[in-house]
Amino acid sequence: MIRVTIWNEFRHEKQHQKVREIYPEGLHAPIADYLAKREMEVTTATLDEPEHGLTEEVLARTDVLIWWGHIAHHEVEDAIVERVKQRVLEGMGLIVLHSGHFSKIFKSLMGTSCDLKWREAGDKERLWVVNPGHPIVEGIGEYIELEREEMYGEYFDIPEPDELIMVSWFTGGEVFRSACTFTRGAGKIFYFRPGHETHPTYYNEQVLRIIANGVRWAKPTHVAKRNFGNAQPLEK
Amino acid sequence: MIRVTIWNEFRHEKQHQKVREIYPEGLHAPIADYLAKREMEVTTATLDEPEHGLTEEVLARTDVLIWWGHIAHHEVEDAIVERVKQRVLEGMGLIVLHSGHFSKIFKSLMGTSCDLKWREAGDKERLWVVNPGHPIVEGIGEYIELEREEMYGEYFDIPEPDELIMVSWFTGGEVFRSACTFTRGAGKIFYFRPGHETHPTYYNEQVLRIIANGVRWAKPTHVAKRNFGNAQPLEK
Amino acid sequence: MIRVTIWNEFRHEKQHQKVREIYPEGLHAPIADYLAKREMEVTTATLDEPEHGLTEEVLARTDVLIWWGHIAHHEVEDAIVERVKQRVLEGMGLIVLHSGHFSKIFKSLMGTSCDLKWREAGDKERLWVVNPGHPIVEGIGEYIELEREEMYGEYFDIPEPDELIMVSWFTGGEVFRSACTFTRGAGKIFYFRPGHETHPTYYNEQVLRIIANGVRWAKPTHVAKRNFGNAQPLEK
Amino acid sequence: MIRVTIWNEFRHEKQHQKVREIYPEGLHAPIADYLAKREMEVTTATLDEPEHGLTEEVLARTDVLIWWGHIAHHEVEDAIVERVKQRVLEGMGLIVLHSGHFSKIFKSLMGTSCDLKWREAGDKERLWVVNPGHPIVEGIGEYIELEREEMYGEYFDIPEPDELIMVSWFTGGEVFRSACTFTRGAGKIFYFRPGHETHPTYYNEQVLRIIANGVRWAKPTHVAKRNFGNAQPLEK
Repeated sequence: MIRVTIWNEFRHEKQHQKVREIYPEGLHAPIADYLAKREMEVTTATLDEPEHGLTEEVLARTDVLIWWGHIAHHEVEDAIVERVKQRVLEGMGLIVLHSGHFSKIFKSLMGTSCDLKWREAGDKERLWVVNPGHPIVEGIGEYIELEREEMYGEYFDIPEPDELIMVSWFTGGEVFRSACTFTRGAGKIFYFRPGHETHPTYYNEQVLRIIANGVRWAKPTHVAKRNFGNAQPLEK
Repeated sequence: MIRVTIWNEFRHEKQHQKVREIYPEGLHAPIADYLAKREMEVTTATLDEPEHGLTEEVLARTDVLIWWGHIAHHEVEDAIVERVKQRVLEGMGLIVLHSGHFSKIFKSLMGTSCDLKWREAGDKERLWVVNPGHPIVEGIGEYIELEREEMYGEYFDIPEPDELIMVSWFTGGEVFRSACTFTRGAGKIFYFRPGHETHPTYYNEQVLRIIANGVRWAKPTHVAKRNFGNAQPLEK
Repeated sequence: MIRVTIWNEFRHEKQHQKVREIYPEGLHAPIADYLAKREMEVTTATLDEPEHGLTEEVLARTDVLIWWGHIAHHEVEDAIVERVKQRVLEGMGLIVLHSGHFSKIFKSLMGTSCDLKWREAGDKERLWVVNPGHPIVEGIGEYIELEREEMYGEYFDIPEPDELIMVSWFTGGEVFRSACTFTRGAGKIFYFRPGHETHPTYYNEQVLRIIANGVRWAKPTHVAKRNFGNAQPLEK
Repeated sequence: MIRVTIWNEFRHEKQHQKVREIYPEGLHAPIADYLAKREMEVTTATLDEPEHGLTEEVLARTDVLIWWGHIAHHEVEDAIVERVKQRVLEGMGLIVLHSGHFSKIFKSLMGTSCDLKWREAGDKERLWVVNPGHPIVEGIGEYIELEREEMYGEYFDIPEPDELIMVSWFTGGEVFRSACTFTRGAGKIFYFRPGHETHPTYYNEQVLRIIANGVRWAKPTHVAKRNFGNAQPLEK
């Protein structure tokens, strides 16, 4: 059983009628439902809980953390961000969704601005697979289509990904590196673009499948302790 | 002075009126003109010359080889391909244009099929820069547009590029990794997508600029001899 | 059950008394024993069998192919090499061991000479993990040590690996990129250095563990058909 | 003329007699001398100057910044670190030397701990070239040797480098990825390991040559403005 914690800012759902209609229990709910049916042990955490729901205990028993945030990135406490970052370096997997590109945790792990172009105009998005053997696209065809999504466009200010898995085409003429992986310390990171709060993207079977594949890919291996500091010679 | 050899199959121009009208002296001609004005020493070579114009002497004095071929890849002799390949491994730069993706030399250096999707329907192509600090896009804006080009679509069966520099958007709904670099031995390789023979792409100032930048990037450094084989220990 | 085929040239064991004493049933035997105990379905194939034991049928039911060859690379028929290559591009995993660096199949997939330095002098080898979160080193400590091995030294003429996992230190003063991964088409490739025929390396528990981890990592995902060629537009 | 600013913490030289004997004018002095003779416009800056010598004006006219720090990383003000980081993302090159691996600027750009093993015992270091065509090793042989240096050993907690150029061998049995490149935004970053303050490493002709090559490689290209934020569609 992979132990997954889904973190959602959970503010749009409370503040905007349109979002609440799509995701009455929060956009983390359909993701949690899907994963829980696939031999994963799922818990959720949200911004307004004490310590944002990300206590030492919660993180210690999390194999993979999923992150969605948007309008309240600045409210996430730096100490919690640092706590999450240490767990990633030690091996916890991290999946960053959509507007999480601007979260403190993602920017801190990337070392760049993570900025991009965007447009809320209901563009069609087609995500093409450019790495067909990667386990994150297991069971996916050549591409997936989303009838309406927010547009994200290049230049996306991230480091060169370790692996580029999907590239998006948008009606308005833009492209985007939509599924990318990174390694930081012993931790695996997967950024996946779709998921604007005003579209029912997290009910899409293929989007959910990619998230589930991402969890399996990002789960920690049984990592050896990484030793640092002063070291005696191994040879005479 | 960088010494550039432009190799062109030079068959379409002889066989097809439409192509001849656009490129009366061959599609290598406008590329040669452009580079020759930018402190490069340019020669050209074509399929129907003895040894395809790629003798040992020609290659020995070539810093960067540019390659365009399409309908006669199979007529290129294996021994010449092997000769070019050895020079690349020793440090000669190689720029492969458009339909050169299916050339023997490119397939041999990549180790894959190099296959892709295509459509000759005059799609608009917009090439987005995804690596803005790379010298190959020096002086280029956020993207370049080509009003009409052949479409090439993913999946493009190449190894993960060392660097991905531009991604194309096409009217018909496809994307493509259009500017990619690879290293093989001491040689630098740059694949650049545009350049279908029925469109005047090689008169486009920005396309030419990227090719010129590519030549400067791919030129050999003063490479140390690479020593192989049985070796005495350096320590007691 | 992952279906593994271990291919061994199997000539040293017949020709050299010293090698036969270490590996009386061939050096593939201890690898096969180890993997068969770990929920893998293992078969073996050798050079002197018809079609080198690698018929269409055998390859069709192979998820991961392991390759060891040395003195008879040139005896492997080109048609069989091409057959193996097509299966790799379609998604079959490939693990290339030690002197397999000079095999036709590895050179063809890499596009380089795959040459290196070597010395048969019983150097001590210490392989350091440089990618501690990678599943291929799951359960391995900071390094593994081999008291006596053939030395392989840089420059190793391979393309920049997708992932570098281990780097070797040798008594004689050399280093080597000893555990590297590559992707070609939908296929995953793992090169792993140790395994000279005159040392009992394939009885080493940690070497075997890394090979088993490599098999699990390289097994094919359920890959979508990769479509190539002329394509109709997806948009009007 | 490439405009280079060499930043040195410049504390060891004032506090330790042994270091002062080797570098009476600071360890930045021999680097500055070498670069100034090679068509570079060199200035230096040190920790105890106002704003650490890194004012907006200084950075605005710096093409490539070289960084050496060790015992006073924590004294570098966060606001100055942020200023340097913005310039890197906009395209300024950055060369981080030796103990600069633990500087705030490097850790912030990498997103990891940048920790490693170390030993001050005068190990011999041999740096092997593993990317022989890279311009950073232009004019360098197969390896360079330093008779006595501080040891740095793996695991070095950095993201997978964009390019790995040299790997070190140490007498005591360790290896290290000693010359690595990274891209962040439009900026190129080169980490180069040698340079402990108690050894005369920055008088070594080959070490200096690699630093000079690094400056040429890292200099900014004429980068297009990177546009972010809300964007109108380019297509109807």
